[in-house]
Amino acid sequence: MNDLADAAKTLADDSFFRGCSEHFESLQALICGAIADEDGGARFSVDEWQRPHGGPGAILGGRGRTRILEGGHVFERAGVGFSLVYGQFSDEFAARLPVGHGRLFAATGVSLVFHPRNPHVPTVHMNYRRLTRGGTGWFGGGADLTPYYLDEDDARHFHVTHKSACDRHATIADYAEMKAACDAYFHNTHRGEARGIGGTFFDYITDDAHDRDDTFSFIKDAGQAFIDGYLPIVRRNKTRRWTDEERNWQLIRRGRYVEFNLIHDRGTTFGLKTGGRTESILMSMPPLVSWAYRHEPAPGSREAELVDVLKSPRQWV
Amino acid sequence: MNDLADAAKTLADDSFFRGCSEHFESLQALICGAIADEDGGARFSVDEWQRPHGGPGAILGGRGRTRILEGGHVFERAGVGFSLVYGQFSDEFAARLPVGHGRLFAATGVSLVFHPRNPHVPTVHMNYRRLTRGGTGWFGGGADLTPYYLDEDDARHFHVTHKSACDRHATIADYAEMKAACDAYFHNTHRGEARGIGGTFFDYITDDAHDRDDTFSFIKDAGQAFIDGYLPIVRRNKTRRWTDEERNWQLIRRGRYVEFNLIHDRGTTFGLKTGGRTESILMSMPPLVSWAYRHEPAPGSREAELVDVLKSPRQWV
Repeated sequence: MNDLADAAKTLADDSFFRGCSEHFESLQALICGAIADEDGGARFSVDEWQRPHGGPGAILGGRGRTRILEGGHVFERAGVGFSLVYGQFSDEFAARLPVGHGRLFAATGVSLVFHPRNPHVPTVHMNYRRLTRGGTGWFGGGADLTPYYLDEDDARHFHVTHKSACDRHATIADYAEMKAACDAYFHNTHRGEARGIGGTFFDYITDDAHDRDDTFSFIKDAGQAFIDGYLPIVRRNKTRRWTDEERNWQLIRRGRYVEFNLIHDRGTTFGLKTGGRTESILMSMPPLVSWAYRHEPAPGSREAELVDVLKSPRQWV
Repeated sequence: MNDLADAAKTLADDSFFRGCSEHFESLQALICGAIADEDGGARFSVDEWQRPHGGPGAILGGRGRTRILEGGHVFERAGVGFSLVYGQFSDEFAARLPVGHGRLFAATGVSLVFHPRNPHVPTVHMNYRRLTRGGTGWFGGGADLTPYYLDEDDARHFHVTHKSACDRHATIADYAEMKAACDAYFHNTHRGEARGIGGTFFDYITDDAHDRDDTFSFIKDAGQAFIDGYLPIVRRNKTRRWTDEERNWQLIRRGRYVEFNLIHDRGTTFGLKTGGRTESILMSMPPLVSWAYRHEPAPGSREAELVDVLKSPRQWV
């Protein structure tokens, strides 16, 4: 087993991979700082974790830092994870991967979900990652917004900001394609609804297809676009008042978020079924959630307006 | 398609199958009456639904009645579903079934989950069902208890009552085996915890192995055992006072219930991914749920006592 762990660790020790990992770790710090400043009420806890070299399980070593802010003024929960792991994919998983060969891999990335207290501030998710596997390396990730009430200006701002980052790297990143992939992926098929109003989603931008330094530049810009795309929306809405009915609607919609993550999300279900760190994976769960039987918003209400856009995703740019 | 629907409907029109279905429908009425009386604050709504003969999807026809009590004195949500459907399994699903042959099937059953408001009253789940598929018919089901605080007398009472029903049908039902199967099935592998303190769980008691009338008698006794096993526990605990901390613990534990149902439960995930009625399937969701990052009960606390028994399931009889 230790020969395998040593071989997998070689992938993680590669200098380009380490550079990516350092970037993701810095981005975690940058985002946590900005979010804590915006919150003004709570700070992020820091939870360092290690996976022992040699296993057990599919993950043969690595480390991570999980940072959580709970009970803030603006954010009821904000979780930002950084990780760098190496290991061995299962045969089944390896067979499904369209790029690279063999079972050894290294992966590093940053991942976050923010759950605001105020129903007028959208929930947001972001993830950028670098993977290597025998023969090639690639980047994947994206960012998407999940409002409880539709604000068209906010939706446009989030999408325009991410489109601009794509447009600055036009040979690598096609915003229209990434937006369509986002709508297709974050879809609660059992509800016939999108999880939110979309954003970007991509995978397998390989070193074979593009110069890896160029792709890395795009990944850096996309990370900055997340900050520029989301924080102004928080700032603009965080002092708005809300009613008990609006809060209740938020809690019900959070149930849809849970349903997506636990039923459909490949990262979550893969992680939970293959020995990932449960507490880090489930930091995406909202702090308080409600399910109501056959809850249907009144026709013409702002709640119904949101459901309409989730049933028929729109173009925002 | 209508030839297929007609052929599947033949399975559902069989007189023994209809007798089972009528029993399950009566059991739903009996349980709803008893639970509403026990609650004293709210009544069950009645939601009749139909699946058109001929599809679309895997379910080629049938009907059901979903009954929900919400916002009661004792029960924050109690859902009891009855259904009778016929259709065509997918090739993949059909290949995994260990009994019968072909893809056509009929299924009928009663299924319930009760979520009490009071953290001292356990959540409970029960399901009994009859299936037929080319060549054979079988019964499956079980009942299991999910307390928030361990009461050993309650745990024993629930298990003893179900064991007695098994013992009256000793050639068919082996309590020890069903209890072990329950512990094995209702297990949150990603948490290393059982969902609750168990009960019974069985499947594929076929007409080939046992006289179907004898098995049906056991199923009837098991349904009565559910009432006799659960209601006294409700009665004994429903007037107990609780603290905010106890309520918070209940909401966190309900999160584990959601995790089991959405990640691991075969019935839930199969139903949601194959076009089942989402609102009926998800009536098992608790009305209010909380997730906390790395919440760990204090050593020696009553909360820690519960976690201990979930990590190491015990024999209660």
